[in-house]
Amino acid sequence: MPTGIQTTLGEQLQHLVDNKTKPLGALGRLEEIALRIGLIQGTTHPQLNRPYIVVFAGDHGIAATGLVNPYPQSVTAQMVLNFVTGGAAINVFCRQHHLGLAVVDAGINFDFETGLFPGKLISQKIGYGTRNYLETEAMSADELTRALEAGKQVVTDLYAGGTNCIGFGEMGIGNTSSAALIMSYITGIPVEDCVGRGTGVNDEQLQLKKETLRRVYDRYLPAVTAAGGDVRVILQCVGGFEIAMMTGAYLKAAELKMIILVDGFITTAALLLAKQLNPAVVDCCFFSHTSGEHGHVAMLDYLGARPLLSLGMRLGEGTGAAMAYPLLQSAVLFLREMASFESAGVSKAE
Amino acid sequence: MPTGIQTTLGEQLQHLVDNKTKPLGALGRLEEIALRIGLIQGTTHPQLNRPYIVVFAGDHGIAATGLVNPYPQSVTAQMVLNFVTGGAAINVFCRQHHLGLAVVDAGINFDFETGLFPGKLISQKIGYGTRNYLETEAMSADELTRALEAGKQVVTDLYAGGTNCIGFGEMGIGNTSSAALIMSYITGIPVEDCVGRGTGVNDEQLQLKKETLRRVYDRYLPAVTAAGGDVRVILQCVGGFEIAMMTGAYLKAAELKMIILVDGFITTAALLLAKQLNPAVVDCCFFSHTSGEHGHVAMLDYLGARPLLSLGMRLGEGTGAAMAYPLLQSAVLFLREMASFESAGVSKAE
Repeated sequence: MPTGIQTTLGEQLQHLVDNKTKPLGALGRLEEIALRIGLIQGTTHPQLNRPYIVVFAGDHGIAATGLVNPYPQSVTAQMVLNFVTGGAAINVFCRQHHLGLAVVDAGINFDFETGLFPGKLISQKIGYGTRNYLETEAMSADELTRALEAGKQVVTDLYAGGTNCIGFGEMGIGNTSSAALIMSYITGIPVEDCVGRGTGVNDEQLQLKKETLRRVYDRYLPAVTAAGGDVRVILQCVGGFEIAMMTGAYLKAAELKMIILVDGFITTAALLLAKQLNPAVVDCCFFSHTSGEHGHVAMLDYLGARPLLSLGMRLGEGTGAAMAYPLLQSAVLFLREMASFESAGVSKAE
Repeated sequence: MPTGIQTTLGEQLQHLVDNKTKPLGALGRLEEIALRIGLIQGTTHPQLNRPYIVVFAGDHGIAATGLVNPYPQSVTAQMVLNFVTGGAAINVFCRQHHLGLAVVDAGINFDFETGLFPGKLISQKIGYGTRNYLETEAMSADELTRALEAGKQVVTDLYAGGTNCIGFGEMGIGNTSSAALIMSYITGIPVEDCVGRGTGVNDEQLQLKKETLRRVYDRYLPAVTAAGGDVRVILQCVGGFEIAMMTGAYLKAAELKMIILVDGFITTAALLLAKQLNPAVVDCCFFSHTSGEHGHVAMLDYLGARPLLSLGMRLGEGTGAAMAYPLLQSAVLFLREMASFESAGVSKAE
């Protein structure tokens, strides 16, 4: 956080928090959250407006091989149809908390009927899934540029509509593999330790997934190293269209000083990329939960993050972000609505 | 849980959970919660109706001595007025989550104007605060009986109005001392390790609080031991009217198969008492959060509880229960509203 005028705002916020009718510090992390949101928004009266979950969906060439995923690739499109018709977990939680939900076709291997789901399904299709990175780079430089820009555009459009709080989710059969490779390149943690069960591979399949991703990791390591760990090279080699789009989305959301809810393993991998491009991105981020997907804990540790929830969820779709949203809302509401000792006529500690 | 027909219901619930459009187990603890609520309510279509937070407020004779609390005793009544006029933290969170809020005068050292807050302030006044247990027992056998019955009555009335999900909160300057003593008598943990900072005593005051409560503990130990740890004797010696009322409230809520949200240090102490009287009470309980009050972790460990939230909150009032409520609601909603693989036409794992 910058100092100067912000320090004064911080003091004003702390004074407000300390004079609410409660013992000092008794609302714990809610008090920190209220303070941070006030500082991000630059006001002593922060508010969360038109909060949205944006689910970026894309297919992965590797998924067609069956080497890393128990579900067929076609499930990506099937689940997107489930999203737009309201039957998925993320729909339930968005309805519960009055969150808007936008689903973005970042590159699904399926043609959706145009105009069938106006306002629900946004087409930013870069292609019909990435290429299989066992054989060649996942995407071209041009595809990557378009994906990053599309992510920024989606956020810009929501911001123009009044949204100042956003959470990202994803859907893409095979994308825990992409996320594990990205995590390994950026954190230096061996890829085998970044790999998890994803949607639920068994022990034998997990071993195969690890061996497969080790081959992929080794294949592109020279290129990544030669580029000095350049995020663009990592994304081109092993990324996904939805992951690239989320990377752009994080960058734009932070630039616009939006309150960002970070979800699970894949969305945090996209944040690792965005942070490489602009470290200040994390200043706007609130970590929703610790996912049950192996590797997320180490990823959060790398970021120094303290997630709000830990319920063993590992579903993606932005479900963790949707469930953490009310905690942020509570923080803003207590700051705005609670009485002070003075206004309520309550005696302070002696 | 009983077996027999319940086992069949458990299997039906598990089948429903497993066929929702998500990988097996991907909603983590929400799946366990959905299953438990279904079993408690005896249905595959559980629902949370007219959820309520009930705040029991009472004064403690010990508080007038200033030996254990930094806030004056008058703050209990002042905060109750804050509750009924909507300015406290619990009001904010109840409004946020559409929870009903009832405040019960269990024995506050103040006369509220009759009829001024209809439906908001329930008078079950046992007295003008307990007696100072440094000098004599906190309450008589008759007062205790009336308090336990009043707690049951409040729950019975809410149940009759359609409430099937309830969380208890409390307000009472000095009541962390009562809770620490109860905890020590029941768990066998030395009273010094049960004592915490409450509303915020400093190091010196904490030492005084520990020494004071050690004297109280020793004073009543022979009576408690002679009675075989009888809950009634513990409550008479060192209890509070609000704590006794909560004990009765837990017993009745569990008898009525209500879904019970357990809040922080003092409300969990009341649960320790209720559990001694009927171990099955905990079958209906969901532990909302780990309080920042020292001693709560050991209390939860003693109960084998795994709380849902851990945000360093230590405010009481039922605020932890109110904030955990949406997690229970999410569990019920996903079970009721999510599509199945069949209904959504999504392929299952190969």
